[in-house]
Amino acid sequence: MKHNVYHDAINWAELRKDHPIGQDFLQFAKQSRDEIRAHQDRLFKRCVARAWQIPFYQRLWGEAGIEPGDIKGLETLNSLPVFDKSDIMASIDANPPFGDFGGIESGPNGRQPVIMHTTSGTTGNPQVLLFGAKSREVQSLMLGRLYQFQGMRPDDVVHSVYGHGMINGGHYVREAVTHWTNAIFMSAGTGVETRSAKQVELMRDFGTTVIIGFADYIKKLARVATELGIDPVRDLNIRMISGHLGREDKNALSEAWGGVDCFDWYGVGDTGVVAGEGPDRDGLYVMEDGQIVEVCDIDTGKPVPDGQPGDIVCTCIHKDDVYPVIRFNTHDVTKIVSGKSSLGLNLQRIEG
Amino acid sequence: MKHNVYHDAINWAELRKDHPIGQDFLQFAKQSRDEIRAHQDRLFKRCVARAWQIPFYQRLWGEAGIEPGDIKGLETLNSLPVFDKSDIMASIDANPPFGDFGGIESGPNGRQPVIMHTTSGTTGNPQVLLFGAKSREVQSLMLGRLYQFQGMRPDDVVHSVYGHGMINGGHYVREAVTHWTNAIFMSAGTGVETRSAKQVELMRDFGTTVIIGFADYIKKLARVATELGIDPVRDLNIRMISGHLGREDKNALSEAWGGVDCFDWYGVGDTGVVAGEGPDRDGLYVMEDGQIVEVCDIDTGKPVPDGQPGDIVCTCIHKDDVYPVIRFNTHDVTKIVSGKSSLGLNLQRIEG
Repeated sequence: MKHNVYHDAINWAELRKDHPIGQDFLQFAKQSRDEIRAHQDRLFKRCVARAWQIPFYQRLWGEAGIEPGDIKGLETLNSLPVFDKSDIMASIDANPPFGDFGGIESGPNGRQPVIMHTTSGTTGNPQVLLFGAKSREVQSLMLGRLYQFQGMRPDDVVHSVYGHGMINGGHYVREAVTHWTNAIFMSAGTGVETRSAKQVELMRDFGTTVIIGFADYIKKLARVATELGIDPVRDLNIRMISGHLGREDKNALSEAWGGVDCFDWYGVGDTGVVAGEGPDRDGLYVMEDGQIVEVCDIDTGKPVPDGQPGDIVCTCIHKDDVYPVIRFNTHDVTKIVSGKSSLGLNLQRIEG
Repeated sequence: MKHNVYHDAINWAELRKDHPIGQDFLQFAKQSRDEIRAHQDRLFKRCVARAWQIPFYQRLWGEAGIEPGDIKGLETLNSLPVFDKSDIMASIDANPPFGDFGGIESGPNGRQPVIMHTTSGTTGNPQVLLFGAKSREVQSLMLGRLYQFQGMRPDDVVHSVYGHGMINGGHYVREAVTHWTNAIFMSAGTGVETRSAKQVELMRDFGTTVIIGFADYIKKLARVATELGIDPVRDLNIRMISGHLGREDKNALSEAWGGVDCFDWYGVGDTGVVAGEGPDRDGLYVMEDGQIVEVCDIDTGKPVPDGQPGDIVCTCIHKDDVYPVIRFNTHDVTKIVSGKSSLGLNLQRIEG
């Protein structure tokens, strides 16, 4: 059996065309809704073709009476069944240890390259996550370009407090920053991986300008700095914080660091980055070349009108190699933000 | 300033030609010494040209009275001054925080992509390590192909106990396995990142077949398994261990896991993998497309005859982007193994 190589599994030119970065991303986002939708429809069809090869989808769709050919394109999307974490867990229980949702089984040239991590398990047991080479790089690209869109510069020094080990988070953001921005990345990790006092010293010694991670721990670092006699505002030069912040936390966090710009983004292990705030901080722009978001009624599962709250149901149109994700109910609640973007972008926005 | 992209900094076709993998590696290693040396000479000259652009080498070589043009090729190598960790630390002290040894300063297109980590600090203070995109991928390739050479298969499940956070180790081996073999990689990390009992459960649940890491902790995992009522031999299916093992540890380690094949390899943060045992376990084969090893007298610094002990002085002929390494004294002691390789390889070998 052959050792397949990660980079050989990626068509870089096609990847860059389907998933623009930098100025090309802004051009993509300024297109008409019809143009954006046509781009999505093309990628979606590729995902559907791949999903039909995978036992998990054959079962999910088969049980709903859907046959190959029934799914024409995006117009069919909201008639497909949703699935969620419990279905993935059931797939793993029935087919341990990797489940039958990933499509990683050996083919004629052996198994394709696969990245395996787990969720953090903060909302339950850790769950296996599987990524193909191409979809892994695309989710990194989408997060890297979101950081750029939020204001990350090539000369930034980025301090990450996302954890490593089996957990996906730290590895994912490391790849996003190091592969797709050229900021310098410090993989400090959790307080267990690098003591909090040491983290503050690292930030001071290496001139950190951006912190990424979770609100609570980033707030804690400001307190730890003060305890060490390091003023988090005067002695450090943080100018941007980006992470899983939530609405309430953002102001307190900004204040703790002297009024720095804080940006929220949303994504889960199964999807990668789904949406994030831009420089206008007026809702989270959906990364529509990679993600389709439907907001669905919590009880009926039907899409709700814009402005109504509901579950985020996500279709990852960039995942057409390993673990296609078509109508995954995250059970996180949001609503669609209406009105024009002050930046002139035609991307859908959701509330943080 | 432009955000430069990691993969754009790599000429994949050239990389694969200069650094063969799989069967191509064995063909490279079976060439005559003259052919291997010609390959090395070409790569060495590229590194020297790059080093002359970097203040650290301008100083190191200038102080030794060497001028551009004086270094003709490999025949000049052992007349160049050596440097070691203390010189890197002095470079950082004089030019904080990154020193002037990396050559990462901004050019006309902005700074090239740089990966930053630190050493573990087990033998002193942690030291900054800097990697360019291409040389990072080559060191990963060399370790991935060594694992293959030692017997890692595409269908293996590899459990790594190398730590993450700021430390290079865990990230490096993760890239080696996921980019260049297609075994499935479990980034368990240290006992702090994933509790030891949990590590054993992971190995059982995911069918781990290979463990990589440091001897002491891998030995400990066998004890922890027994304490949990899991027999490390009967209940787990480990068939290979590779890591920083040392001579004494290897037998005890093999025994603790029921006589599995254990392989040693050598490398430090500044060099990447330098040499490793092959399936014959008769000395460590030097990865001669990436590394030139000189064994030098500990007092005089002059190369010693084969079979005599001395410091490993390493020249990394794959590092021609960020942090070129030309005659780095690791202060680790070895000797050259003489006699023919039973595998018919013409690579230099050193003692583990």
